[in-house]
Amino acid sequence: MQILLTVAYDGTNYAGWQRQDNAVAVQEKIEGALAQLLARAVTLRAASRTDAGVHALGQRASFFAPDLKIPTENLPLVLNSLLPEDVSILAAESACENFHPQFDAKQKKYIYNFYNAPPPNPLARKYSAFVSENLNFYDMQKAAKFFMGKHDFAAFCAKGSSAKTTVREIFFCSVEREKNFITLTVTGNGFLYNMVRIIAGTILYAGLGKIPPDSIPEIIAAKDRTKAGKTMPPQGLVLAEVMYYAH
Amino acid sequence: MQILLTVAYDGTNYAGWQRQDNAVAVQEKIEGALAQLLARAVTLRAASRTDAGVHALGQRASFFAPDLKIPTENLPLVLNSLLPEDVSILAAESACENFHPQFDAKQKKYIYNFYNAPPPNPLARKYSAFVSENLNFYDMQKAAKFFMGKHDFAAFCAKGSSAKTTVREIFFCSVEREKNFITLTVTGNGFLYNMVRIIAGTILYAGLGKIPPDSIPEIIAAKDRTKAGKTMPPQGLVLAEVMYYAH
Repeated sequence: MQILLTVAYDGTNYAGWQRQDNAVAVQEKIEGALAQLLARAVTLRAASRTDAGVHALGQRASFFAPDLKIPTENLPLVLNSLLPEDVSILAAESACENFHPQFDAKQKKYIYNFYNAPPPNPLARKYSAFVSENLNFYDMQKAAKFFMGKHDFAAFCAKGSSAKTTVREIFFCSVEREKNFITLTVTGNGFLYNMVRIIAGTILYAGLGKIPPDSIPEIIAAKDRTKAGKTMPPQGLVLAEVMYYAH
Repeated sequence: MQILLTVAYDGTNYAGWQRQDNAVAVQEKIEGALAQLLARAVTLRAASRTDAGVHALGQRASFFAPDLKIPTENLPLVLNSLLPEDVSILAAESACENFHPQFDAKQKKYIYNFYNAPPPNPLARKYSAFVSENLNFYDMQKAAKFFMGKHDFAAFCAKGSSAKTTVREIFFCSVEREKNFITLTVTGNGFLYNMVRIIAGTILYAGLGKIPPDSIPEIIAAKDRTKAGKTMPPQGLVLAEVMYYAH
């Protein structure tokens, strides 16, 4: 029996999702709670290896548990009692044996939060990127729409990525504003390393007037990382949702 | 010359607004930054002494500065460069000599945030009270409206308060819901010790079905603290705004 978890976490104090030496990762916290429950080592496979400082409201991770003694639907309550308060299991469901949370993901939704005002907001600092300069929101909206479609996103990929292809399809890319908060929502069939944070930085450049919003197609076509905007900091990024077909 | 600051802070790591021995308060952080700027001791007078763990987006505090050498409107930028990132000066303006930020306050607005879902949300934990039980939002709305008006709020005051009178006027009291977040907004001419947190706890009791929403007038009339709901925890409370006449 494979169990698929929906996981939320505050990434502030973690070196990312993936278990690693010399740093605390979200994965080991949940694996530790599962090991307590099942009295054996458990390895999680996740939909996405979020980076250090990145948050999640809809990360998915699975494990095999033929020995699970409690009803699957009780797992969140039990695991949350064993987890620190910056990690929470939102749901648990069964999945078929050959399901894989990363390779079977059809769509992922990310949110990038900007806080835009001259003085910083202490309540938003851990969950948004602070931008003090005046932003042209309509130019950000215009820029965002050019990302939609199937493109080679080589210009929006950090160096060192081992992706076989840099072609990805973006189904939805839009910014919304509520008071001083500007929220970028991006849904796609997959994302390259740092891709959402570089898209966010490029849309920010459009808002700052550093690039014209209609230059996005040229930037994409150039396939040159140096033409795109900066990589935005991790604390504004949230892995919001991972979508699957029936599993 | 008196200067009036608008101050935001994340109260998580502070023992409240007021300077005290053996604990770090927001007041001393700002007084410390002002002392650096003016090269002398500075004492702030605030609109409200928020409790340990309570946040602010619109606290007001003033000081006398005949020796201020920079334009008042530059104070936020300069002070924020000297302050930790969980305290931010949003604005600075001049006020007349006999203005007092507490005694001249005409209205204060507080917000209390609930996060309502069976699994907790790690991104909301520092800025809301987590409620796992099912809540009847409409009963919370009904309960909230009974707080409006001029009443003796003795039932909504923590013991040990030194207030001369427990009569206060509530101008606005309402709850709103967006997804799993329920937000209580209360505006009044003044608040007793813990009053908003006890009102929040009483409205929560209505949502939980522990009390009928139309029992609020009786609870107010009883003037008995034990009839009202529990005192909600500090992390859900935000001092949102303090309003003055021209100063």
